Amino acid sequence: MSIDQSACHVLEHPSRLSLHEVSDETLEKAARIFRALGDPSRLRLLTILTQGEACVSELADQEQLSTVSQRLRTLRAENLVSRRRSGKHLIYSLADAHVVEMVVNALAHAGELPLPDNT
Amino acid sequence: MSIDQSACHVLEHPSRLSLHEVSDETLEKAARIFRALGDPSRLRLLTILTQGEACVSELADQEQLSTVSQRLRTLRAENLVSRRRSGKHLIYSLADAHVVEMVVNALAHAGELPLPDNT
Repeated sequence: MSIDQSACHVLEHPSRLSLHEVSDETLEKAARIFRALGDPSRLRLLTILTQGEACVSELADQEQLSTVSQRLRTLRAENLVSRRRSGKHLIYSLADAHVVEMVVNALAHAGELPLPDNT
Repeated sequence: MSIDQSACHVLEHPSRLSLHEVSDETLEKAARIFRALGDPSRLRLLTILTQGEACVSELADQEQLSTVSQRLRTLRAENLVSRRRSGKHLIYSLADAHVVEMVVNALAHAGELPLPDNT
């Protein structure tokens, strides 16, 4: 269906939308978060972490540790993952419930995972 | 804290992670969704739509309708928004609950909106 650009005029609508409720700064920050999520390899790491925290060597699996460390660095820069040291292990986890929700919802929206049970 | 790349070895960990549970195709699809979300202007449109459906002329507000239509086209391509015609109005809405959740969680994670009440 084609868009008729002269279809209607904004003044015909009640001004019910608070267009500027969210600040530009918050939108830019949220967009940066989404861009950090917008890479299949980084998203794979986050998907693994939805199952629980993991050591960097587990996350690296068959890949170069330096490659995985770079991806984790990008995710940490947007506060999507947290890191702690436990003895000789570097343990990564998802930063908070928002991140879990974003990843789970994107995978569900991508169509191959069921909607989580009201979480 | 610096990363000691020889800190531990994957074989020291129990193989509890299902690394390949999510297909590459799903990860690529989810990453594309995140990239569509990773733009402040498109995100602004989605933020408005979290308050309810809106006609394209409302969404355009002070902007060029063609610019807004292009953004909406990108969002529709990833099935993030739906469109229906009602008389002379083109009404847009968020495609489903996953999209609402992703946007709300990203804004909350960006730090200026409170966590939604158990939604």
